[in-house]
Amino acid sequence: IPVNFLDHTRHKGLAVAVFGVLLCKLWGLVISPNPLPFTKSTENKQNWVILGVFYYPALYYPLLACGTLHNKVGYVLGSLLSWTHFSVLVWQKVDCPRTPVIYKYYSLFSSLPQIACLAFLSFQYPLLLFKGFKDAEKDNAAEDLSSSYYSDYVKKLIKKRPAKSSTSGTDKPKLPHRIIDAVKSYIYTPEDAFRFPLKLAVSAVVSIITLYQVGLVLITAVVPTLQIARMGVDEDVANLLAGFKIILSPDKKEVVRLVVYYMWCVEVCYISAMTLSALVNLAMLMRSMVLHRSNLKGLYRGDIYNVYNCQRSIRASRPALVCWMGYTSFTAAHVFIAMFVQTLIFFLSLLIAVFLVIIPVLHAQNLILFQILLSMWPFWLMIILVVLIQHITARFCFIKKTAGTQDLDKRGSLFLLTYLLFPVNVLIGVLLAFWRLIITALFNIVHMGRMDISLLNRNVEAFDPAYRCYAHYLKIEVSQSHPVMKAFCGILLQSMGPEGKAAQRTRDAEEGIQLVQQEKKQHKVSSAKMARGRWQLLYTLVNNPSLVGTRKHHQHQTAQSFVNGSFSRSTKQGSKKEAPPKEDQAPASN
Amino acid sequence: IPVNFLDHTRHKGLAVAVFGVLLCKLWGLVISPNPLPFTKSTENKQNWVILGVFYYPALYYPLLACGTLHNKVGYVLGSLLSWTHFSVLVWQKVDCPRTPVIYKYYSLFSSLPQIACLAFLSFQYPLLLFKGFKDAEKDNAAEDLSSSYYSDYVKKLIKKRPAKSSTSGTDKPKLPHRIIDAVKSYIYTPEDAFRFPLKLAVSAVVSIITLYQVGLVLITAVVPTLQIARMGVDEDVANLLAGFKIILSPDKKEVVRLVVYYMWCVEVCYISAMTLSALVNLAMLMRSMVLHRSNLKGLYRGDIYNVYNCQRSIRASRPALVCWMGYTSFTAAHVFIAMFVQTLIFFLSLLIAVFLVIIPVLHAQNLILFQILLSMWPFWLMIILVVLIQHITARFCFIKKTAGTQDLDKRGSLFLLTYLLFPVNVLIGVLLAFWRLIITALFNIVHMGRMDISLLNRNVEAFDPAYRCYAHYLKIEVSQSHPVMKAFCGILLQSMGPEGKAAQRTRDAEEGIQLVQQEKKQHKVSSAKMARGRWQLLYTLVNNPSLVGTRKHHQHQTAQSFVNGSFSRSTKQGSKKEAPPKEDQAPASN
Repeated sequence: IPVNFLDHTRHKGLAVAVFGVLLCKLWGLVISPNPLPFTKSTENKQNWVILGVFYYPALYYPLLACGTLHNKVGYVLGSLLSWTHFSVLVWQKVDCPRTPVIYKYYSLFSSLPQIACLAFLSFQYPLLLFKGFKDAEKDNAAEDLSSSYYSDYVKKLIKKRPAKSSTSGTDKPKLPHRIIDAVKSYIYTPEDAFRFPLKLAVSAVVSIITLYQVGLVLITAVVPTLQIARMGVDEDVANLLAGFKIILSPDKKEVVRLVVYYMWCVEVCYISAMTLSALVNLAMLMRSMVLHRSNLKGLYRGDIYNVYNCQRSIRASRPALVCWMGYTSFTAAHVFIAMFVQTLIFFLSLLIAVFLVIIPVLHAQNLILFQILLSMWPFWLMIILVVLIQHITARFCFIKKTAGTQDLDKRGSLFLLTYLLFPVNVLIGVLLAFWRLIITALFNIVHMGRMDISLLNRNVEAFDPAYRCYAHYLKIEVSQSHPVMKAFCGILLQSMGPEGKAAQRTRDAEEGIQLVQQEKKQHKVSSAKMARGRWQLLYTLVNNPSLVGTRKHHQHQTAQSFVNGSFSRSTKQGSKKEAPPKEDQAPASN
Repeated sequence: IPVNFLDHTRHKGLAVAVFGVLLCKLWGLVISPNPLPFTKSTENKQNWVILGVFYYPALYYPLLACGTLHNKVGYVLGSLLSWTHFSVLVWQKVDCPRTPVIYKYYSLFSSLPQIACLAFLSFQYPLLLFKGFKDAEKDNAAEDLSSSYYSDYVKKLIKKRPAKSSTSGTDKPKLPHRIIDAVKSYIYTPEDAFRFPLKLAVSAVVSIITLYQVGLVLITAVVPTLQIARMGVDEDVANLLAGFKIILSPDKKEVVRLVVYYMWCVEVCYISAMTLSALVNLAMLMRSMVLHRSNLKGLYRGDIYNVYNCQRSIRASRPALVCWMGYTSFTAAHVFIAMFVQTLIFFLSLLIAVFLVIIPVLHAQNLILFQILLSMWPFWLMIILVVLIQHITARFCFIKKTAGTQDLDKRGSLFLLTYLLFPVNVLIGVLLAFWRLIITALFNIVHMGRMDISLLNRNVEAFDPAYRCYAHYLKIEVSQSHPVMKAFCGILLQSMGPEGKAAQRTRDAEEGIQLVQQEKKQHKVSSAKMARGRWQLLYTLVNNPSLVGTRKHHQHQTAQSFVNGSFSRSTKQGSKKEAPPKEDQAPASN
C-alpha cells in the first residue's frame, strides 16, 4: 500500500517535508522565467507552468511513497533518493549562487526551505532504517492503534468530565484575567492528550513556507531597487522637483539630503509593513492552531452547535471531500494573498502616519493635521462634554437601584435629554461610523489569511468560501479519526493479539471501564440509569446518523468481516461503524 | 408631564415629524455657509454650528411638548405653532427659491422633507383637537393600556404556541422555497399583533430623510458641474490631450464627440451608483425592520441566546441607557456614511465595468481584458478540469454508500489524488482568496448602514461599535415595554376602573386564562405539573434577575404602592416588578 501517506498512522515528518519541497518548487515555477529545468526558452511559459504543475508532484512522489512501504527496502530507497535530491540541489546552488531573477541572491534564499526539507528527509530516512533494524517485527498499523495515545485520551476524557461540568459560564472573570486569557489563546502550547491531524500539520508548515517566500519576494523585489535609487539621487533631482513647482529648499544640497531622507523613510515604512504583516500572520497561524484543536475536541465531544453555530450532520459528502482535498493548498493561497494585501495596506497606513504625524512632530513644521484638529477644539470639547453628560446622567440620575436590581427613573428628563442631544448625537454617530469602518476593515485584513473563521456576519457565515471549505474539511477529519473509536479499535486488536502483550493493555482498558463504573455507582435509582442510557444512545444516534443503519442487524456481520479482514486497511473503514454502537449500548443494556 | 413624548403611550406621528424637522435643520446647519438665520457673516462658522446644534432642538421643542399635554389647550397651541412654522418656511421658499449654495434649487429641494413634516404636524394637531372634543373624558395612559393591542398580543401568543413547537428545524426546505423566503425576509409586512416601538419608528423615518438628503447633495454637487463641463467641451480638448500624448482620433471633431461621449458615460455611472446605493439602503432598512421585529419578539419570548448569541441579562444599565439615548442619531449617521462610501465604491466599480467591458464590447475594440483572459485559456481549462475531476471522483469513487449512510472508500487513491493536485489547488486557492476578498468587502459595504447586524466574526461581534449599541438599545427597549406585562397592567387597571367598562375587558382576560387552562388540562399528573411550574418560575427568575428581590416579601408592599400611586406615571415602573411574578407563581401554586 504505497499510497497511504496521509493516514494518521504514518510518520508525519515525511509527508510534511515532501509537501514543503513541492510548494517551494511551485513557487519557483511561477516566479522564474524558465519554469522547467530542461527548457531554455521563455516562450510559452504558461504551457510549461501547466506541465510543471503536474511534473513536480510526480517527481517527488517516490520520496513520499518510500516512507509508506514500511520495510527496509523502502527506507533504503528513500535514503538514496533524498540524498540525491539534496546533493543535486545543494550542488546547483553552490555552483551558481547568483541568478538574474528579481535579485541576485533571490534564487539562493528562495531555495533555503527546500534545502531544509530535503535535509530533514535525508536525515529521517536513515533514522527510520536504523530503527527498523532494531524492532523489525512490529506491525505499524497495529502499533498506531495500540499506542497509548488513544487510550490515554479516553482516560483523560472520562476523568475530566466532572471538573468540566462544575465550571459554569455565568460568572464573568475579571479584566486582567480576561486579558491574560486572550493572550494565552494566541499561544499554542502542546497538550499531551491531543495529537494534531496530519493534514493540519502539513497546512501549518505550508503556511510558514508561504510566509517566508512571500516575504522574500516582497523584500527582494522592492528594497534593492529603492536602495539603488537612493544612492543615485544627485542635484538633478532639485531641478526635476522645481519643474513640478516643488521647492523643498533653496539650497540644492539640502534638497538632495531631504530627498534621500524621505526615501529612507519610505524604505523603513515598507520593511516595517512587511515585518508587521509577517508577524500578524504568524500570530494568526498560532491562533488558528489553538482554534483547530478546540474545534476538533468540541466535535469529538459532539458539540456541533458551538463549532458551526448550527446543527449539521458530521459525515462524508461530496463537497466535504472536495474541500478536504483542497484544504492545505487553499491555506497556502490565502496566506499568500493576505500577506500581499496586508503589506500594501500597512505600508500605506504607515506612510500616512510617518509623513503626516511623525516627521512633522519631529521637525516641528508642516503640522497641518494638528492645526486642523486644534482649530476644531470647540467641536471636540462639545463632543466630549456631551458624551460625559450622557454617561454621568445615565449613571446617577436615570438608573434607580431598588431591591438589588436596576430600573429606569425619571423618564421625562430622560426623554427630554434624548431629544435635546439628538443633533449632537448625530455628529458623534458620524465619528462612530468612521471608527466602525476602520475597525471592520482592519479586522478583515488582519484575519484574511485565516480560513478557520468567517469574515462575514454570523447568519451568512457559509457565504465566505474559505470558512465553508474549513467547515467541510472539519467534517471529514472528525468523521474519520475519532480518538474514542480508535481506542476501541486498539483494545479490540490487542484482545486478539498475542496474549502476553495484550494482557497489560486490557488491564488499561478495564481501568477505564472501572472509572466509568465508579461514576455510575454514585447514581442509585436503576430506572433513571436506564432512561439516561437510552437518552445517551438516542443522542449519539441523532448526532451520528451514519450509525443508525449499522446498529442492530448489521452488527453481527460487520463484526465478522472486521475480524477476518486485513487490519491495516479495514481498521478505519470497518471500525467506524463498530465502535460507537458498542459504547452506547453498554449503558442502555444496564 | 409635558416631556413624556418618547413613551409608547403617545401619538407616534408627532414625535416622528418633529425629529424629521430637526434632522433637516441639522443638515442645513452643516451645509449652508451661514448656519443660523440671524447671522450674516461666514466667519466663526464652527461656533455658530455648535450654537445651532442646541438652538434648534429648543426651538422645536414646543411643537413636541404641546402633543404630550393631552388637553385642548395643548392641541390649540400645537396647531398654532405648527401653522406658524409651516407658513414661515413655505413663505421663505416661495419668496426666494434660489440660493447660491451647491446648486440653485438645492435649498428648495433640501427643505421638502421639512415642509412635509411640518404639514403633517399642522394637519395632525387640529385632528387631535377635533378628536379631543368628541371624547374628552378618556384618560390617555389608561387608554393605551386598556387598548386591545396587548391582550390581543397575549392571546395570539398563547394560541400560537402549539403550532410553533411542531415545526422542527431539521428538515431543509427546497431551493425555490428558500429563495422565496429570502426575498420575503427583505419585505416588511405589518403584523396585527405587533406594534413597533416609537424609537424604532423615529429611526426608520430619520434614516429615510438622511437617504434623501445625502442623495440630493451627491446629485446636486456633481451632476450639474459635469453637465456644464460636458457642454463646454470644444476642439481645444484635442490639443490638451495631444499634450499628454493621448490621440483618440486624428479628426478633432471626432475627438470632441468621443470626449463628450465618455463624459456622458461617467455621468451615467455616477447617477447609477447613487441610485443603486439608495436602493440598497432602502432594502437594508426594510430588512432591518423585519429583523427588529423578530429580535423584539424573540427577546419577549426570552430567547436571548438566539438574538445575542450569548447569555446576557436584560436590564437597564449605564452603557445600555447611553446607547438607547443615541440610537436614533447613530442610525442616521451610519446611513449617511454608508451612502457616501457605497456611492464611491459602486461608482468606481461601474467605471471599471463600463470602460473595460461594456464600451470595448459595444465598439469591438480595445478588448484588452478579454485578450488577456483568452490568452490564458490553457490555464482556465486546467483549473476547470481539475475542479471537475475532484468533484466527479469524490462523488463516484471515494464515497461509498453502505446501509443508507456515506463513508469513505479507496483512501489510497484519495491520498494520491490529493497529493498530485496539491499545486493546482494552490492556484485555485488564489482565485478563491480573491473571491473571498471581493465578497467580504461587498458584504460589508452593502451592510454598512445597518446597525442591527455586526460586520465582524461571530466571536468578536461586540467590537463592532454599531452592533454593540444596537444590542444595548434592545435591552432597554425590551426591559421597559414587555407586552405581556402591559397586558397584565391593563387588566389590573380595568378591574379597578368603572365596573361597566371593565367587565367586558375582564372577560377577555378570563378568556386568555381559560386558554392557558385548556392547555394545562391536557396534562394529567399533578406532580409533573408542580415540577413544571417550579421550573417555569426558576426560568423566569433566571432570565429576569430583577424580579428576585421583589418576589416574596417585597410583593405585598409594592402591590400597595401600585394601587395607591398615580397610574399614568407608575404603570411602567411599578408594574414591571409586579406582573411577571404573578404569572409565574400561578402554576407554581398548583
